[in-house]
Amino acid sequence: MYIENLKGPEDLKNLGIKELESLAEEMRQALIIRASKHKGHVGPDLGFIEASIALHYVFNSPLDKIVYDVSHQTYPHKMLTGRQDAYLYEEKYDDVSAYSNPKESDHDFFEIGHTSTSIDLAAGMAKARDLKGDKYNVIAVIGDGSLSGGEALEGLNIAGEFDSNFIILVNDNQMSIAENHGGLYKNLQALREGNGKASTNLFTAMGLDYCYLEDGNNIEKLIEVLTKVKDRDKPVVVHINTLKGKGYKPAEDNKERWHWSLPFDLQTGEVKAEYRSEGESYQRITAQYLLKKMEADKNVIAIAAGVPSALGFTRSVREKAGKQYVDVGIAEQSAVALASGIAANGGKPVFGTSSTFLQRAYDQLAQDVAINKSPVTILATDASIFGMNDVTHVGFYDLAMIANIPEIVYLAPSGKEEYLAMLEWSIEQQDHPVVIRVPAADVTYADYEVRKNYGDIGRFQVTKEGKAVAIIAPGTFYNLGKNVAELLEKEADIAPTIVNPGFVSHIDKALLEDLESNHELVVVLEDGVLEGGFSSKISQFYSLSNMKVKAFGLNKKFYDRYDYDEIMVQHSLTPRQIVDDIKIILNV
Amino acid sequence: MYIENLKGPEDLKNLGIKELESLAEEMRQALIIRASKHKGHVGPDLGFIEASIALHYVFNSPLDKIVYDVSHQTYPHKMLTGRQDAYLYEEKYDDVSAYSNPKESDHDFFEIGHTSTSIDLAAGMAKARDLKGDKYNVIAVIGDGSLSGGEALEGLNIAGEFDSNFIILVNDNQMSIAENHGGLYKNLQALREGNGKASTNLFTAMGLDYCYLEDGNNIEKLIEVLTKVKDRDKPVVVHINTLKGKGYKPAEDNKERWHWSLPFDLQTGEVKAEYRSEGESYQRITAQYLLKKMEADKNVIAIAAGVPSALGFTRSVREKAGKQYVDVGIAEQSAVALASGIAANGGKPVFGTSSTFLQRAYDQLAQDVAINKSPVTILATDASIFGMNDVTHVGFYDLAMIANIPEIVYLAPSGKEEYLAMLEWSIEQQDHPVVIRVPAADVTYADYEVRKNYGDIGRFQVTKEGKAVAIIAPGTFYNLGKNVAELLEKEADIAPTIVNPGFVSHIDKALLEDLESNHELVVVLEDGVLEGGFSSKISQFYSLSNMKVKAFGLNKKFYDRYDYDEIMVQHSLTPRQIVDDIKIILNV
Repeated sequence: MYIENLKGPEDLKNLGIKELESLAEEMRQALIIRASKHKGHVGPDLGFIEASIALHYVFNSPLDKIVYDVSHQTYPHKMLTGRQDAYLYEEKYDDVSAYSNPKESDHDFFEIGHTSTSIDLAAGMAKARDLKGDKYNVIAVIGDGSLSGGEALEGLNIAGEFDSNFIILVNDNQMSIAENHGGLYKNLQALREGNGKASTNLFTAMGLDYCYLEDGNNIEKLIEVLTKVKDRDKPVVVHINTLKGKGYKPAEDNKERWHWSLPFDLQTGEVKAEYRSEGESYQRITAQYLLKKMEADKNVIAIAAGVPSALGFTRSVREKAGKQYVDVGIAEQSAVALASGIAANGGKPVFGTSSTFLQRAYDQLAQDVAINKSPVTILATDASIFGMNDVTHVGFYDLAMIANIPEIVYLAPSGKEEYLAMLEWSIEQQDHPVVIRVPAADVTYADYEVRKNYGDIGRFQVTKEGKAVAIIAPGTFYNLGKNVAELLEKEADIAPTIVNPGFVSHIDKALLEDLESNHELVVVLEDGVLEGGFSSKISQFYSLSNMKVKAFGLNKKFYDRYDYDEIMVQHSLTPRQIVDDIKIILNV
Repeated sequence: MYIENLKGPEDLKNLGIKELESLAEEMRQALIIRASKHKGHVGPDLGFIEASIALHYVFNSPLDKIVYDVSHQTYPHKMLTGRQDAYLYEEKYDDVSAYSNPKESDHDFFEIGHTSTSIDLAAGMAKARDLKGDKYNVIAVIGDGSLSGGEALEGLNIAGEFDSNFIILVNDNQMSIAENHGGLYKNLQALREGNGKASTNLFTAMGLDYCYLEDGNNIEKLIEVLTKVKDRDKPVVVHINTLKGKGYKPAEDNKERWHWSLPFDLQTGEVKAEYRSEGESYQRITAQYLLKKMEADKNVIAIAAGVPSALGFTRSVREKAGKQYVDVGIAEQSAVALASGIAANGGKPVFGTSSTFLQRAYDQLAQDVAINKSPVTILATDASIFGMNDVTHVGFYDLAMIANIPEIVYLAPSGKEEYLAMLEWSIEQQDHPVVIRVPAADVTYADYEVRKNYGDIGRFQVTKEGKAVAIIAPGTFYNLGKNVAELLEKEADIAPTIVNPGFVSHIDKALLEDLESNHELVVVLEDGVLEGGFSSKISQFYSLSNMKVKAFGLNKKFYDRYDYDEIMVQHSLTPRQIVDDIKIILNV
């Protein structure tokens, strides 16, 4: 075994091609076995093993800087830079993150997780190198899927004006998470079919030199082409053709399924029984609802930005939706602006993506949508403590971001019926841009009468009248609010008012004023960061009043790979803790 | 005169080429005369008169949809669609906005002001048309300068997959606001030089058909080429070569100066004396400081995203800065990510742009900068009530946006000395991503000792000890705070504490706690929107305390072309009003 004894990339340089190939095989086996036992990316890494070896063979990391895009393809890179144990030994699987991470190694320069950033970040490193007068290589690695993102295209344009060393390695595996979308992919195809020659070329059109390698999983040829561009004094694109999922048949055959996987059975590729979730999920609810809605109304159109799973749009759903579905590629800015254009011309667009990716479209939300009051419907998923928990994918910073943009109505349904009611209302109304915070926890059901009309913007719903304490619990935290109320009544004989606000962008001033007559404390449960969030609007409202406001939620900081239960406890978000805190405040 | 009697674009269709040319001449004269008396865009409109006439001659607006990018080139369009009086008669100059505006006309579909959105918005309109089964033309107009923006490039890629009518008119006047930057401009140049033929082609690389017109200011030829693409059933790019500023010699000769102008003398082109500001300005202070700093430290680099004026980087400053200046084109996402890359590799980047344009880079601020704690310095200009006042350019929504991103230190200097101290500190420190809210009002000077070190994050500065009332007045509003304090002392015999917080992203909990001992009211003066803003953090802090908090600032809504004095009065932001409110609250 070579991989076990590798001290770092410098050891690669003593190996011959055959040995490097054996190493690749060892790495591939380790990655497949690990993937079968530990959730994570599969296809992107299996296809990039040879290129990772060639990069580290030819270049001298960390003096030469290799910057990865998204960085979900860095597992082989991590194995080559001293972190192989995390891929070889089950007890060490959690020693590494799923993305590049400077805290783990000097060979990593950024914590990354969003797409299309590598060219810019690497360009910055090259710029700093030139300012200092240093000489080494800077390499940006980027997949074909990420090229649809505006930031990557901006980066190509900027690099096209550089006049020093800068290598852009385009890893073309002919896939985004799902299939690619957009005209540029016809050009990549033409370039592949012409072995690097075609009637036009996106990269040279951006002012860059260009070379092509058909066999991007061949270590010898990779070393050859990378050696040619090494130490070059002007920018160049190296376009390599690779096979996503290479070496694991199920992953080669169904690339979308195997972009990322839960633990699976090695033989069949099926997700292990204990990880399967085949019951109700908000994504499946979304897809079912939209398919039915589309059938009834040809003006309804679903929009994805490279992540159709946010809408529950599996391949079969996409096929059924036909022309009423559009995937713009990884291009959230365009998805939001496109939705605004559709709405402005009488269509009924529903764009869905993870809250964290919606950050890419802040300006489009504010300008193209909100200023224009375009009646779009946007679904923000994972905008919850219970959403994705890698630092780059955490989605609960959305409240400050989205809910403070004027004109945007941000709705937080507490469960299934309310989610569907809000969706239906939003799609049919013509007056407001609407974002819906799709619950991220298990599907729950209403124990109160769900409103059908949300046109009275900011009107909260009191689901239980009480006194002394009012608990305002939006969205996923509505049930937490109920549990708190029950415990409070049981322990302190206080029957609190329970409020399901429905809105997190607006407050119900009349109700808040009414509460002053027979309440002394308003408790706000915030499934996200407190600063700039929903609860801050309540605190502001009462800032001159005698009403006490106690908000429970997260502090403004970044959270990485946290444990869901622990983070709740750490922020005093269990019913037990909340009730204890209330009792202290009320002195009961 | 034709222009006076034009009822709408349908009248154009009865005119011959010679008459259309006369009309163009009339429009040009009207635009020049108006510009000399009323601030506004000059070059973009003078260069697009003929194309505007040809568009309305060939197409049937508003059935055919023409969507403009930035829309600062819509003055001729407005003249042709019933709004000519606003360009002909001085008393009506203010009847129209500077951008496309659906409130003014059925021929306008969006309120626009940021770049690179037209392709997406128009693509959305085309998509809605196709869903409904309608047949008409959708045309996106976009300038060459806007093509460097990722959203435009995403849009080209998306359009490259469309299979129905969609026309993209690229108005290539070889200029952004300043000169263009990026590799794609070499391709545009090659296409111009080859009369539409070159070894590669950005547009066909995006999967689009393409045609070129050399003489983009020739009405007859424009009509010819537009007639050819009219009713076409697949997307096409029509690339036209135009002259920015055409017909006004000074504007042709100095395109950057004449992108937009204050009122000027028609003969000399000089800005009229009463509009000139040649004294100190924060932009000039920035440029002077940075030039000196760069000379002393070769690792300092200034970054612009198509708007070098935000940094005060006139052409001569840019030339002096040399390699220590980079303009990425209109590409804020890349500017921020590039800065992160530079900082990660030991450089000292300073990126400056208008607050409103920084919205484009929300995700890059959060991910590439904040998560990575890259010690970048970003200057946000116009982030103030006293900044630009077109609805699409208003910059005071920044507090909710920027100050709630974890790790970002958002500083608000009160005047010149503090601004320079913060700049110096930020550039030299290595621990924090820093954004500085550049004051937008007249340059003011400190009456207190300005700190040199801002490393104690969130530490406020008490500039005057007092009691009963504490006035927290960040940034531009510090002087307002002083005026309020004076008036309060004079009228109510209350000598309040005055606090210059310096930070708007963090609060000084120790100080706020101290204030509880001998203050009963904290007044916060917010130069921006209250919801999600700085004052909301203060309200949150005191939400369980007896301290009353009164924040003065703006409500969460969009503001358009407001009067600076009026908006202050409307929001009770004059010293007189504030003191009156304080007296009511204190019952004195």
